Parts: sequence; C-alpha cells; structure tokens
Amino acid sequence: MRPSGRRADELRPISIQRQFTKHAEGSVLIGFGDTRVLCTASVEARVPPWLRGQGRGWVTAEYGMLPRSTHTRSDREAARGKQQGRTVEIQRLIGRSLRAAVDLQALGERSVVVDCDVLQADGGTRTAAITGAFVALTDALEGLVRQRALPASPLHGQVASVSVGVYRGEPVLDLDYAEDGEAETDMNVVMNDAGAFIELQGTAEGHAFRRDELDRMLALAEKGVGELLQHQQEALAT
Amino acid sequence: MRPSGRRADELRPISIQRQFTKHAEGSVLIGFGDTRVLCTASVEARVPPWLRGQGRGWVTAEYGMLPRSTHTRSDREAARGKQQGRTVEIQRLIGRSLRAAVDLQALGERSVVVDCDVLQADGGTRTAAITGAFVALTDALEGLVRQRALPASPLHGQVASVSVGVYRGEPVLDLDYAEDGEAETDMNVVMNDAGAFIELQGTAEGHAFRRDELDRMLALAEKGVGELLQHQQEALAT
Amino acid sequence: MRPSGRRADELRPISIQRQFTKHAEGSVLIGFGDTRVLCTASVEARVPPWLRGQGRGWVTAEYGMLPRSTHTRSDREAARGKQQGRTVEIQRLIGRSLRAAVDLQALGERSVVVDCDVLQADGGTRTAAITGAFVALTDALEGLVRQRALPASPLHGQVASVSVGVYRGEPVLDLDYAEDGEAETDMNVVMNDAGAFIELQGTAEGHAFRRDELDRMLALAEKGVGELLQHQQEALAT
Amino acid sequence: MRPSGRRADELRPISIQRQFTKHAEGSVLIGFGDTRVLCTASVEARVPPWLRGQGRGWVTAEYGMLPRSTHTRSDREAARGKQQGRTVEIQRLIGRSLRAAVDLQALGERSVVVDCDVLQADGGTRTAAITGAFVALTDALEGLVRQRALPASPLHGQVASVSVGVYRGEPVLDLDYAEDGEAETDMNVVMNDAGAFIELQGTAEGHAFRRDELDRMLALAEKGVGELLQHQQEALAT
Amino acid sequence: MRPSGRRADELRPISIQRQFTKHAEGSVLIGFGDTRVLCTASVEARVPPWLRGQGRGWVTAEYGMLPRSTHTRSDREAARGKQQGRTVEIQRLIGRSLRAAVDLQALGERSVVVDCDVLQADGGTRTAAITGAFVALTDALEGLVRQRALPASPLHGQVASVSVGVYRGEPVLDLDYAEDGEAETDMNVVMNDAGAFIELQGTAEGHAFRRDELDRMLALAEKGVGELLQHQQEALAT
Amino acid sequence: MRPSGRRADELRPISIQRQFTKHAEGSVLIGFGDTRVLCTASVEARVPPWLRGQGRGWVTAEYGMLPRSTHTRSDREAARGKQQGRTVEIQRLIGRSLRAAVDLQALGERSVVVDCDVLQADGGTRTAAITGAFVALTDALEGLVRQRALPASPLHGQVASVSVGVYRGEPVLDLDYAEDGEAETDMNVVMNDAGAFIELQGTAEGHAFRRDELDRMLALAEKGVGELLQHQQEALAT
Repeated sequence: MRPSGRRADELRPISIQRQFTKHAEGSVLIGFGDTRVLCTASVEARVPPWLRGQGRGWVTAEYGMLPRSTHTRSDREAARGKQQGRTVEIQRLIGRSLRAAVDLQALGERSVVVDCDVLQADGGTRTAAITGAFVALTDALEGLVRQRALPASPLHGQVASVSVGVYRGEPVLDLDYAEDGEAETDMNVVMNDAGAFIELQGTAEGHAFRRDELDRMLALAEKGVGELLQHQQEALAT
Repeated sequence: MRPSGRRADELRPISIQRQFTKHAEGSVLIGFGDTRVLCTASVEARVPPWLRGQGRGWVTAEYGMLPRSTHTRSDREAARGKQQGRTVEIQRLIGRSLRAAVDLQALGERSVVVDCDVLQADGGTRTAAITGAFVALTDALEGLVRQRALPASPLHGQVASVSVGVYRGEPVLDLDYAEDGEAETDMNVVMNDAGAFIELQGTAEGHAFRRDELDRMLALAEKGVGELLQHQQEALAT
Repeated sequence: MRPSGRRADELRPISIQRQFTKHAEGSVLIGFGDTRVLCTASVEARVPPWLRGQGRGWVTAEYGMLPRSTHTRSDREAARGKQQGRTVEIQRLIGRSLRAAVDLQALGERSVVVDCDVLQADGGTRTAAITGAFVALTDALEGLVRQRALPASPLHGQVASVSVGVYRGEPVLDLDYAEDGEAETDMNVVMNDAGAFIELQGTAEGHAFRRDELDRMLALAEKGVGELLQHQQEALAT
Repeated sequence: MRPSGRRADELRPISIQRQFTKHAEGSVLIGFGDTRVLCTASVEARVPPWLRGQGRGWVTAEYGMLPRSTHTRSDREAARGKQQGRTVEIQRLIGRSLRAAVDLQALGERSVVVDCDVLQADGGTRTAAITGAFVALTDALEGLVRQRALPASPLHGQVASVSVGVYRGEPVLDLDYAEDGEAETDMNVVMNDAGAFIELQGTAEGHAFRRDELDRMLALAEKGVGELLQHQQEALAT
Repeated sequence: MRPSGRRADELRPISIQRQFTKHAEGSVLIGFGDTRVLCTASVEARVPPWLRGQGRGWVTAEYGMLPRSTHTRSDREAARGKQQGRTVEIQRLIGRSLRAAVDLQALGERSVVVDCDVLQADGGTRTAAITGAFVALTDALEGLVRQRALPASPLHGQVASVSVGVYRGEPVLDLDYAEDGEAETDMNVVMNDAGAFIELQGTAEGHAFRRDELDRMLALAEKGVGELLQHQQEALAT
Repeated sequence: MRPSGRRADELRPISIQRQFTKHAEGSVLIGFGDTRVLCTASVEARVPPWLRGQGRGWVTAEYGMLPRSTHTRSDREAARGKQQGRTVEIQRLIGRSLRAAVDLQALGERSVVVDCDVLQADGGTRTAAITGAFVALTDALEGLVRQRALPASPLHGQVASVSVGVYRGEPVLDLDYAEDGEAETDMNVVMNDAGAFIELQGTAEGHAFRRDELDRMLALAEKGVGELLQHQQEALAT
C-alpha cells in the first residue's frame, strides 16, 4: 500500500559510512533509502562572540542541498545570496538536537560545526541529517579525547530522528518523497536513548490530526528512533 | 508558584481590539497579558508567481518585532538587511496555521497577507500573533463578502494557538517571559475548533520531555486553545 | 477649502501619550490627526565605533513604516533586505534634529537610539516622528538623571517639526495625506524653542515656489511649531 | 577671511566641459574650483515599471564618488554591496531637481538617466552635480530633437544649484571643503531661471539659524545661481 | 622529489564514476587523486533572458566547495550571502570551457547547467571539475538524443583540463595541494581533442616564468590532457 | 585590414598623465586609444586582518566602470548591490600583477590600494588599468621614500600589460572594441621588464587556438609590452 511496498512501521534501508572524506574530524555519509546526506563535523578553537570568556563550548549545524540533489534543479543559495527559510529552520533544528546530547561546559571554549549537505534527496533529509550528524559529532569528540584535549567525551546521550506521518489515512514511519508530497500530516521527531523527546515538529498539511492519530504517530516514531539508535551504535562500533 | 501568581492552567488576561488601525481590511491589536501584537490583514488582487492562473488564492504572513518591543533593544532587521532565522520560522508557522482554516479554492485568485508586528513582547508572541491574525483574517474575508466579491467567507474553521511548557518541573499553560527563559521545555500548539492539531512544535531546552509530560502539556493546550477560541468569538460578535 | 475643513493655519488634533510601551526608557505614541507614530528611546552604554574613547555621546534615530500603515500595503523592508531611500533620508533627518537639542559632551559615552515606527500614516509622518521623538528622548534623559547616572539632563532646548505646503495655490499648515498628494510644494521645517531653524527641506513638486510663497510658508511653520512645543510641554508636565 | 581668500558672495572658478566622454548622449565635466564631477546623460527607450504604458517619460539620476576622490580613501560602495544614506539622498535630490525642468509628457515613453560621478571632491559636489547634470541633460534632449525623435526639447526651464552657509558667523556663498567642515549652517539651494525655488535643504550643524541669517543666505544663493545659469548658457552656446 | 613520489609528467590516479546520483540528467563523481568533485548536469527548457527567442541554447556552470572539503573549514557561501571572487572566476571558466565543445545553435532553446561541487579538495579542483563536467554534459546531451528531443548530440569535440606548474624549479604536471602552496607558477590549461587550446590561465606566484619554462609547461599539459581525454572516453564507453 | 587601420603589431596611441587628481598618493589617467582609465593609488597605514602582525605589507586593486563608460549604459554596481563576476576577476588580476613587482616585506605593515576606474571604454580596459596602475603605484611608493617612511622603494621591477588576439584569422596586438567583439581568441598578457610572464589569460571565443597561433600571439605581446614599459618610463621621467 505504501509506494515502496514497506510496512507502515518499516524504516527504509539505513546506511552509515564513517570517514567518507578525509579532512573533517568527523565525516559521515548517511543513507535513509535514496536520501543521502554528507555530515562533517569540524572542531574549531573558538566560540561565537556572545559566548566568549565563559568557559563553555558550542555545537551548531549548517544545512544545504546541492542544487541538483532534487528532482528538478533548485537555485544555488550561494548564488541567490540568501538561504531559504526552510534551510534556516532545518539547520536550527539540527543544532538544537545535537546540543541536547552534549555537555557544553565539559566541551570547554571550543566549537563543533556540523555541516549537513544533501547529495541526493528522497524525503526525510532533516531526520537523516540529525541521525548522521550525531555520528560525525561523536567521532569529532572522540578525536579530542584521543588527542588528550579532553579527558572524556562531553556526550551524555545519543540522539536520532525520524519522520512519521499520516499517508492515505494511515500513520506510517519514515516517509519518502513519494509519500511526503501526498501526506496529510507530517511530523519530525527527535528523541534520545532514554526514550524522551528533544524536538517534536508536526504539521497538518491536508487535514488537522486528531489526538488518537498523534498517539499512533508517536508510537511509530519511538519504534523508528529505537532502530536508528541501534544503527548508530553498530556504525560506531566498527 | 508561577512568577505571575497564575494557576498552572490559567491563561494571561486576553484582549482583542478590532479596527485598531484604519487602512487594513482587518486590523487587530491582541494582548496576551503584556504581550501586544498588531495584526493587519491586507487583501491583494494577485497571487505569488508560482500560483498564477490556477484559480486558487493564497494566505501568508509576515512577522516582525519593533526594535524596542523587548527588554533590551534589538537591531532593526530592515537596517541589518536580513531577517533572523527565528523571524522566518515564526512567519512560516503563522502562514501555515492560517491556511489550515481557509478554502484557498473558494478564495479565488487573490491573496491575504497578514502582518504581525509585536509592539510589546512578554513571551508567547507567536501564539498571540496566530490567535490575533485569525481575527484580522476573518474581518478581511468578511469584507470581501460584504463587497460581494465572494459569495461566502472561505473560512472553514477557527484557529488559535497557545504555548505550554514545563516550568520548574510542572507543566504550565501560556508561558510569559519570566517563565520562558527558565522553562525546561517549550511547546507551541495550534489547534482548530474541532479540537484537532494543526501545528505542534516542542523543544526541550533543559531536559528532554517524557511521554507523560507531553500528555499533560497537550491537555493544558487543549484547555487554553478552547478559551482562546471563545475570546475570538466574543471579539468577532461585537 | 481644505479637505479636512481646517483653516490654512490650523494643525490637526495633536495627541501625545507617554509610556505607551513598558520596556523602553522613553515611549511615546504621537498622533497628528490620523497619523500615529510610536517613538521609543533606548539608552545604550556604548557609542558607535568612530566615536569611542572621546567621552562624547551619540543620539540617533531609526524610522520604519509598518507594511499596512498605508492605504495599500508596502513591502516589508526587512523582507526586501534593504531600506528605501526615503526611509534612510527620514531617519537621518530625525537624528540630526534631535542632536541639535542635546549636549553630546554632557551625555557622556552612551547612546540614545530613538525608533520611530509608523503605525498609521496619514501624511506628515516625519514631522510627527520628530515631535514625538523629542518627548521620548526627554523621558529617557530624565531617567538617567533620576538614576543619578547624569547630574542634569543634557538637553539644551526643545525641538519640534511641522510641514507646510502650497495646496491649490494657498500656503497651508500641516498637510494631511489628502493634501499631500496634490500639493505643489511641500516643506518640512524643524525649529527649536528659540524660534530658530534646525532643518528646512522644501521641495517643489508641481511648480517652483517664489520667495513670497516661501515667506508665507515659513510664517505658518513658525506658528505651527510654536503650538507643537506647547503640546510637548503639556505632555511632559503630566 | 575665507580660507580661499574669496569674498563672501564669490563663487569658485566654474568650468563646464561638454563631450568629455564619447559614448553618452550628454557628457559634461563640471568644475566648481577643485570639485570635479563627470555628468553623463543616457537616453533609454524604456521607463520604470510603475510608469509603463502611460505615455510619459522619466528623468532620474545616480551619484557616486570615486573611492579616492576624497582626502582619505572611502570604501567602494559596489564592494560594500550597499549605497550609503548620503549617496541615496543626493541622487534623489539631483533627480527631483532635473525633473522640475522637464515636461515628462512631452518626453514620451523614454528615460534619461544622468550619472554624476565625482572624480575629485572639494566641497559642494551635489550642487556641482546638479548644475552639470542640467547641461548633460540638455545635450541629450537636443540630440533627440536632432534625430527627429522629438519635435522640440521637453525642457521648460533652466536649473542650477549652489550651497550657502554660515561660516564663522558670516553668510557665505559656495562653501569649499575647508569651510564646509567648520560651517555652522549649510544649505543647498536649487533654483530655476525664473528665480523660483525648486529645492531648499538647510541644516544647522553648529547652532540653529535665525530668520535673518536665512534671508541673507537666500540672497547669496540667488546671486550665485544667477551666475551659474549664465555659465551654463555660455557652455551650451559653444 | 614530488611530495607524492610522482614523476614530473605523471597525473594522479584518475577515477570517473557516472550516475553517482539519480536525479540529474548527467551525474559524475570525478577523482584526481584525493580531489573529488561531484558534477551534475541539469537540462532546463529555458534560456537566460538575454538569449530568449533566438533559437539558441546555453551551457553554464556553477561551482562550490562544501565547507569542510578543505583542510580547515571555510565559511558556507550561502550563509555569508556572497560567493567569493575565486568561486565566481572558476565557474565562469568551467562554463566557457564547456561551451567551447557545444554547438549552441544545434542545442535549441534549452539550457544545460552543470553544478560542480567539491566534496574533497586536494589541489586542482577546477581542472577536475572541467574534466568531470564534460562527462556529465555528454550524458545529459545523449539523454536528449535518446528521448528524441534532438536528432544528434550538439557536442562537436571533447574537452579536458589539467594544471601544470613550476615546483622547486621544475615544471610538473597536475599539482596536488602539497605542491600547490609552494609552486612558483601555476597554470590551468583547457584543451580539446584536436590538441588546440581553449583556455590558458597562468599565474606567477613566486617568480615570473620565462618563455622556455612556459614551453615546457605547455608540453606537460598537452601530455596530461591527452591522457584525461582517454580516461573520459573509457568512462563514457562503459 | 584592422578597423582602425593599424598594423597587426601596432599599439594604439598611448597617453599617461600623472597627478590627474590631487588627493591620491598616485593618480594617473592612462589612455590606450579611446580607452581611458583613472588609476589612483592610496597608501593606508594598515593591512588586511589575515596579515596583521607579520611585518609585511599588501598591495591590492579595485576596478570599476562608470555606468556610461560603455556604448550602452550598464547598471551601477553600487546600486545593484553586487560586483559582477567580470569585475571581480579583473580586480584580482590587477592586484596579482602589481604584487609581482613589489617586495611586500620591504613595504612594511602598510597597504597600497589602487583604484582603477574606467571613464571611457574602447577595449582593453584591464590591460590599460594594469599599465596605468603600475605608474600610480610607483608614485605612491616614491612618496613614501620622499617622506622618509621607507629607505627605498620596495619596487623590484616594472610591470605592464597588453592584449593580443586572433582577428579574422590573423594575430594582432592591442585589440580595440571593434576587434574585440569579433576576435576568435583573446589573450591578456602581463609581463615584467625582464621579459618574463606574470599572468597569461587566453580564451578561445570562436575556435580553439593552435600552438603556432599561441606562439605568434606571445611574440606580439612581448613587442607590445616592451613599448608600454618604455611609455611608463617616459611618463615617470617627467
């Protein structure tokens, strides 16, 4: 019944490839089906101006889509001279999600910038980005420990994200592009490994969703995030 | 226990003043306590380029804060030459929320732009903006009916919004500025008069929220939105 | 003969409401008839870079019109990413006018920024802005004296502004929107309480004005500013 | 008593060189003493969007200073990506002044853009620009007559501009850079050949100016503009 | 003697992977050693405004580096709101190089936009981009033939590019990052399969290059481009 | 055979006028035929941020065309808010060319900015700019010696530039506008007084150029630059 033939509670095939590029402290190519996002984590020895001199660190994210990652080419934001509202929203979401897993005090006065660049889009780019960015961030922070710049990783949990939605009247997990355009409701859920919520962003696109639909979507999200956390652990174990 | 002395499930005093300015087709000054937002709805005889020739209309919103609506002065976005990420996020949210209540086909090839300008900020500006914008939009659409430009209002429901959060461990309704800075979790909820959800945006700022906290917050939001819908009706009845 | 029925030398009803919003050090809603401008004065503990370390202060102004303060909606300057030439001209005029009344040396190394935001436009927004901004500035400077940050107010005079023009061949005072579009000549005059000129900006829009017309306009302006100075004093006395 | 040794009512040496560059329909290098401005008038077969289809023409101006036309180098506005407020003000002033001399109806649906670029600045660049731009505009309009695109020049008068000010307590004509920085009052006056005023922009920089000072400045301006109109005629006669 | 141990006339290992992403009409990941550039060619049914209605097509290119494709992170151009001079230069070079191989008349009124995004940089990104972009362009044009939109491919030749330089006094082929920073002279050469030059951009960074050094560099470039043309053919044959 | 009647190896008349404006440390109006470029060199007591504290100086250039320096008016870049790609390319080329002649260590921690503004364009503006900029730079550096700010000029050579191209099948020197639009190949060559190459930028616009054509163009360039170096010396000797 889903265009992909998946069950309602079935994720797309997940792939997580670490060290995809060589310069970044963390570099992960994550795939949620045909959606592929390159997440690189860069450690910098400075913090934003408003945080200077407080002994605390910062974690932030930037997001971009290559112009032809999509079905039809989009304008290059660098050429237009302006990031779109959607881009700004997504990169703020990724940044907040990652910061929820990091002890910024323990990080000390340094920053980690995670760049999430979509090489190929097929729905769910922001949830793939968060899930991959967490792995890149982990690698970057472990690098600081290995270099003895930090005594221990300032991570205090694990974070992953998935989308859920109501497609043709039925709650489903991890919408792809074919479903996304038609879904009546679309919700992005970010959770940690304690099963608690970090971000919840639900939008009714066709009809408003009732409380019982919300409950069923949240249950799907809990299942999906659980599996993604497992994928992250496996990727980090190799 | 709340800085304002309110009960956990108590809204701030709500005021809705229609026809606050004279040029706009709808002009509403809404107050959620000390938060005051001027919402003006402007009808335009054209639609955005990507919608031309389809016979459908469009409803959109823009949001701004006067530079000294806040405790300390913020830069004027027009002078900086760029809207902040937060501004862009909020105006997209308001636009989506309003469109959820309008039959764009019935509106015909015209636009309504709702400007939400914060004169004084004390927390919850986006929820006040949505709630006031709905009233301004209603007035603008009724105006089209009165001028016989439309046979009936293309509104198919009522929309209001409120914030909920976890403040000092306790779920509370309609956070003000004093609570907002300290809240561990903050969620903006947009609902319609059928009791269904249009938007749900929850962010854990201190600690991630558990499912039971989410359920209690949603219950508070349902109560608060119910009262706001009532305030809207009373304002529109006069 | 004037659309409003006013005599040639008659101001519109003037209203000056102090403490219109609560955060700013000075906050004034001024009305020149249906023109309503919110003027807020913000004290900041720093000066622009080019003035640092000289022990002198700075007074500046910013101006904006809410998008639907006018008959038809104008683009939001923050969204366009650029202030219009007219905006820049007006805010420079307001700043110069206010500085003419302040002893910047006595102000010390701090700034006052006066934001003038037009809530409703009906002609003469810049003259209303200057006249209201002076009151907001006075309140902000008095606040510094009350907090003992300054021994005395660095104001050394009073400033107000009015427009004059030639409408259907006749010099008139305080043009409203209905007159403004049709006026052959339009002049904005800023004066102090010693009866001297601070700014004079006259533009012939239809036909060039002769010296005798100029003299008659200046006489009207002197009368009008005199009354506005009186309105300011009354507002400040309450 | 004046740094240049000039009498209070004496202009600097004026030079007007037509056909300074070869591509423009009008090209004038004007000198007010050491101030040198290149004014080129370009005829274009279109009008701005808001004027299309009305059968009327448009005259507008742009202004710029070469980065090292001044004592110390200023940033190139093209590199900063933004024109300064002063630039915008001046080019609007030049445009209005020129339009006051043209019958836009008779010009037909075409534009003349006059670019005023300051090669060397020594005070009074805007008044030199207006005075030179008028000559370039005249040449461009005469060209249309010669090509039989127009039956007669749509000019209905002559326009020139000069500055006056109060320097060390004394009203003087045509301030140069040495006087400008020190002047207590500075006024730019644009007049036509009927002796009427087109623009009057006076600013008190040190002390506000009294009515009698204004009258003496206006008398100087009338004398100065009279001489400039004569210089224009002589230049156009060759 | 070269940091990589290569001979003076030896290219780095070249890899060309077609169909790297699925949406674009041509999608090539090219590697010149560790330099990896994703080149996607997008066919669009329109041409730039200045070319409309002439029956001719257009080929253009855009270039970008992912922020952490380099040793240290660079600002994201979309976030800075401006493309750097280097970026603009490179994308103009790629566009001109590709157009030299295409019969724009035969292409008809459509565009091909080739996006070259550097995933990993190790010197020579512009030459890799041109060489890969040609393959992506070929695939996109062949696609038009397969869809019978064109009777034959409008390509009339093959284009590839390589850098040459003087490193420690010795002309060498295909500089990598380690050599590039130290090279005294750096030249990018674009040639076609007839052995003729399309672009030549040589820059003396340390000392100016003599005519005999130029001749030796050109000979190396001819050899290198010959091998790259062979690599392109092999990739296109599979 | 050339539109101007020149021989294939003949430069246009060259004029170099020093001290064209009075404020700049070096100010040169250079003419290559009807192409006229004003080059001003400004000495500044600071270096760009990335060079601070290293004891070395910097030489850079900016380039602009007056809007009506060309046959038809171009948009003013300051008004568009963006420099064109061509402008950026040219100013980077001028800067690199000048730096090739200066010992930046000997210059000490100061900058020279050379502004090249095209008053009239007739082909070859960038080569005229480089050739004139060198003279302005020389004057500015000599000024530092005369003021005893430097013991000797940090110039270690002379730099000039000319274009060559293939026009109607024949290599020619110093293309003017009439030739430029039609040339099949266009190359800008920057050389020093030791006969070595500093920059070489060749572009095939019609057909790719063969090695023998390149050799003939280089020979013409060597002859042309030789004559330009002579013109510079003569100008500097007066």
